[in-house]
Amino acid sequence: MPDAQAPDLASPDLASIVHDIAAEMRLRAERGTVADYIPALATVSPDRFGIAVIMADGTCHTAGDADEAFSIQSISKVFALTMALGAVGDALWQRVGREPSGSAFNSIVQLESEHGIPRNPFINAGAIVVSDILLGNHEPREAIGEMLRFVRALASDETIRIDETVAQGELQTGFRNIALANYMRAFGNVRHPVEKVLGLYFHQCAIAMSCRQLAAAGRYLMARGRHPESGRSVVSPRRARRINALMLTCGHYDGSGEFAFRTGLPGKSGVGGGILAIAPGVASIAVWSPGLNERGNSLLGTLALERLVEHTGWSVFDPVTTA
Amino acid sequence: MPDAQAPDLASPDLASIVHDIAAEMRLRAERGTVADYIPALATVSPDRFGIAVIMADGTCHTAGDADEAFSIQSISKVFALTMALGAVGDALWQRVGREPSGSAFNSIVQLESEHGIPRNPFINAGAIVVSDILLGNHEPREAIGEMLRFVRALASDETIRIDETVAQGELQTGFRNIALANYMRAFGNVRHPVEKVLGLYFHQCAIAMSCRQLAAAGRYLMARGRHPESGRSVVSPRRARRINALMLTCGHYDGSGEFAFRTGLPGKSGVGGGILAIAPGVASIAVWSPGLNERGNSLLGTLALERLVEHTGWSVFDPVTTA
Amino acid sequence: MPDAQAPDLASPDLASIVHDIAAEMRLRAERGTVADYIPALATVSPDRFGIAVIMADGTCHTAGDADEAFSIQSISKVFALTMALGAVGDALWQRVGREPSGSAFNSIVQLESEHGIPRNPFINAGAIVVSDILLGNHEPREAIGEMLRFVRALASDETIRIDETVAQGELQTGFRNIALANYMRAFGNVRHPVEKVLGLYFHQCAIAMSCRQLAAAGRYLMARGRHPESGRSVVSPRRARRINALMLTCGHYDGSGEFAFRTGLPGKSGVGGGILAIAPGVASIAVWSPGLNERGNSLLGTLALERLVEHTGWSVFDPVTTA
Amino acid sequence: MPDAQAPDLASPDLASIVHDIAAEMRLRAERGTVADYIPALATVSPDRFGIAVIMADGTCHTAGDADEAFSIQSISKVFALTMALGAVGDALWQRVGREPSGSAFNSIVQLESEHGIPRNPFINAGAIVVSDILLGNHEPREAIGEMLRFVRALASDETIRIDETVAQGELQTGFRNIALANYMRAFGNVRHPVEKVLGLYFHQCAIAMSCRQLAAAGRYLMARGRHPESGRSVVSPRRARRINALMLTCGHYDGSGEFAFRTGLPGKSGVGGGILAIAPGVASIAVWSPGLNERGNSLLGTLALERLVEHTGWSVFDPVTTA
Repeated sequence: MPDAQAPDLASPDLASIVHDIAAEMRLRAERGTVADYIPALATVSPDRFGIAVIMADGTCHTAGDADEAFSIQSISKVFALTMALGAVGDALWQRVGREPSGSAFNSIVQLESEHGIPRNPFINAGAIVVSDILLGNHEPREAIGEMLRFVRALASDETIRIDETVAQGELQTGFRNIALANYMRAFGNVRHPVEKVLGLYFHQCAIAMSCRQLAAAGRYLMARGRHPESGRSVVSPRRARRINALMLTCGHYDGSGEFAFRTGLPGKSGVGGGILAIAPGVASIAVWSPGLNERGNSLLGTLALERLVEHTGWSVFDPVTTA
Repeated sequence: MPDAQAPDLASPDLASIVHDIAAEMRLRAERGTVADYIPALATVSPDRFGIAVIMADGTCHTAGDADEAFSIQSISKVFALTMALGAVGDALWQRVGREPSGSAFNSIVQLESEHGIPRNPFINAGAIVVSDILLGNHEPREAIGEMLRFVRALASDETIRIDETVAQGELQTGFRNIALANYMRAFGNVRHPVEKVLGLYFHQCAIAMSCRQLAAAGRYLMARGRHPESGRSVVSPRRARRINALMLTCGHYDGSGEFAFRTGLPGKSGVGGGILAIAPGVASIAVWSPGLNERGNSLLGTLALERLVEHTGWSVFDPVTTA
Repeated sequence: MPDAQAPDLASPDLASIVHDIAAEMRLRAERGTVADYIPALATVSPDRFGIAVIMADGTCHTAGDADEAFSIQSISKVFALTMALGAVGDALWQRVGREPSGSAFNSIVQLESEHGIPRNPFINAGAIVVSDILLGNHEPREAIGEMLRFVRALASDETIRIDETVAQGELQTGFRNIALANYMRAFGNVRHPVEKVLGLYFHQCAIAMSCRQLAAAGRYLMARGRHPESGRSVVSPRRARRINALMLTCGHYDGSGEFAFRTGLPGKSGVGGGILAIAPGVASIAVWSPGLNERGNSLLGTLALERLVEHTGWSVFDPVTTA
Repeated sequence: MPDAQAPDLASPDLASIVHDIAAEMRLRAERGTVADYIPALATVSPDRFGIAVIMADGTCHTAGDADEAFSIQSISKVFALTMALGAVGDALWQRVGREPSGSAFNSIVQLESEHGIPRNPFINAGAIVVSDILLGNHEPREAIGEMLRFVRALASDETIRIDETVAQGELQTGFRNIALANYMRAFGNVRHPVEKVLGLYFHQCAIAMSCRQLAAAGRYLMARGRHPESGRSVVSPRRARRINALMLTCGHYDGSGEFAFRTGLPGKSGVGGGILAIAPGVASIAVWSPGLNERGNSLLGTLALERLVEHTGWSVFDPVTTA
């Protein structure tokens, strides 16, 4: 048991840890359920598993399908929030809350009693308001382009693209999200035409990235807000800290408490099966396995992160990380 | 602004930081609302403010009314959970969830749809189930005694006592808690007679401690589960980590996200105005100011912790703590 | 089909209609589920079926087990409401609403958002407030006695009694009702000690009556508030009308709309399997069959009333009744 | 007090009753709040009051602004339901419930827990499903035309028209209804494109009628489903009865219980300030006053109907109507 013997944190052989995790995950029989509400997602094989760990010094360890692109879906909410905070600052919090919702990712119930203010920016309703903010005076096409450029810059990778098949699939079947957006528009908390807001939102969700690219894009969140290669400040240290806090309390819908309990890491999941997790000051981590658990979070992705923390002691709640 | 200039973390003069915080809090005009549902709580002056910070090496910094005892109320839920996990282990989680509730501390709504299983052990319903577990085969008097001995041992202070006036006040007016307990008994998730369970629960909430005592009692949570003086293991490192995770996601009722956003520390509040916060590996902190914000958490206590983190960089989301 | 050929309402042979209904019900295979939360209720055979129809002129038609006493349970709420309105008048409506709840009979959810004011006097929470009103300055024993005398007088039958085994069973297992009562006490809408209020409530529910007795007790509701034998006014015509309206909109919990849709009669059901239904100006009707449908209302009792209305045209929504 | 002296029902001077009611309403200072969510509705003067009573024999009594057309809004749901039942029969009830919702007219909460099945056809969500059914294989333009022809035939008045300004206003600002429709489409309970469904729905709500026309259109509901002039069966007697039952239990949103309690009549209100009420076998009644109470029902319209019933004894719960 990891508690019985303290992991040798001075020099964990990360390469072999990552390799072993991928090997274990590949053998697992129970792999969860692949999201099927968009045809393009449903065709992904549940056998896929990838992991990428980028350390503060830039070292990168990968295993499995770490270079295969998948639909990042809700993980994009982290990048969208980062952009929107850059655009309007803390005024954003007048339109979106900062509390765990205690509800499913697409729940509309809470919006009624709280007059169109979503609980946090990581549930669908909150992310739609963030999209509305990002639209600003732009046309959706421009805002989508800006978003893609931002993610490419974060990841230092110009090959990242949007999967138009996925984006179109959402546009055709995203009735719940259309409902959420119109509902908030009735309260004045969505201000642009709903089809424009969702045009941006659905394209942002359809960004396709590999684990390697995703871990790269998340580096600023482990590095006090700085892009490690350019040295440029993406967000202030305080804001980076706070985004991490939001990821920990709200990043996995009504499974956020469980994820924090098991991994102790800020993380954000997507229904494509990806999870971005941050060990502040230490590592930016991306895992991917398309099968989801009953809360809509990657089943093996969560387990892989739990294993990683067991072997590295990277939980933010573990003092060993301060050694 | 703390973000503009990185705090000198190598040698923060904690004594003066703590002193300055207490001075600022003493001057604040807006002090929140003192809980009045029990007469014994309503008589406490909103002018009180205390803070105690105990470092990993045992150094203790205090300011203000750090030696005045107050009713720890819901902070006791951390100690009760620790005891119950020791008694029944992870089987506890079959009767209590690990998710933020998104509701007020005494909400009964969620219990109906989730068949009597409380969302987490830090809302009232969850703590009542924990009391039911702690009763085991004991009479309330014995279980209360055991709880008091446990808290005294944690704090290394035999003078800690239960305020019987407060306990009796809860017994007389705690109709909502009686309702919660009976409601869960209807689902079979409270198994002892309700009056016995609540006898234990109300006495546990009525434990009176000073900031100094409370910070001392919390030391095991910063020290991988070990009692720093005796060296004895109170809980395993993994369990300490997980209790910290629960405090961060669920420790402030429907204000937990906000508290995590602002302070970045695992913490547990009580309606007596106290907060216990943990900087893993670094410090155990207790603050006290009786006035509450609209979510039932200490208004100035929260602000004081925010200030402390700004000056020390102790947020679990801040990589500087690993320096 | 009853719609195809208008029933001969001038002289329906009620005796044979009632006989045929009982015969059909006796043969039905699907009989619903007998309530089992009190042992004394669970032992009743689902094969039982009784019906009694008392006309405005006093003629009484019965069939099946019409003289076997059963536990009237929630049907008692009609008599309790009548008494309480007599005691405090329309001031009662400051503590209880007049709207269908849209929820199950023992739901606690609505109480939280509406600050302890139950939706109507026919859900458990509302009936508990009515009991609290009826207690007035009495001890439970006196109030129970008064209630029993009232029901006996309505039915002109001194043999009606309370089944103490049922009453004690409720006292031992009624945790949800204890929760409801304490919850409302927290809001100040239950004012006597909960055990006294529930002592009255559980005894009122434990009144045992046969269909014949129950139909007799309901006569004042078909007769503009007058007791047909004594000629005494039990309630004013307006109040009788309004109690009937409440029975139609709220008498079958979250199955009230369905019952009104199918029978068109004001009615009140109990988990003992009884239903009291009123055809204003025409008849007071009691049916009994212990098996319940998924909403907690007598499955065959409802069907029997539907048949009766099909053959007699007694729906309050049918102009033929004015012929 | 009406209860003290039984009204002389054999020959109530209806003309003077109706006149007196209009006179009283005209003088009332408190007139409620005119709906303002559509500009075209907000401009109507709160001073307006009209009443029309059409007896079974065709006699018509009117007073006040009985010939001024107003937007019938949700009253159209009665006619739409009637048409849809004609089109698909009781299969309709697989997609819409028959229970009071206990919620506001535009609530979305219940839809989530009940998987997109609205509680009844008289809340917005239910009426939108009815519109979806009415669309069938038609284009919205055809379905709107058919609806208008149906209402004109019921009222025997070819001058009834749709107020296009109102219809366009709803199309531009009806975000909540768009949300409801999309939400149900996500559950598969709206099957046509939402803009087509709402095109029909908003036009149906924008039908403009006077009290005289509305009372005429409602005659089939007092006459066992038959159109009194043509003698043609609009619906079967049983269906007429059931529509009346639904109006009584669900016709006034979360004020349905209160309306039934006070008037004892099946009725359906609209936010334009109109109410259609039915005294089965006796009269079809329309009242109109634009000011609404806090539940969205006409304040003076309800009071006028209460007065009418006090003087006529037409409550369905009053046996005198059978004399």
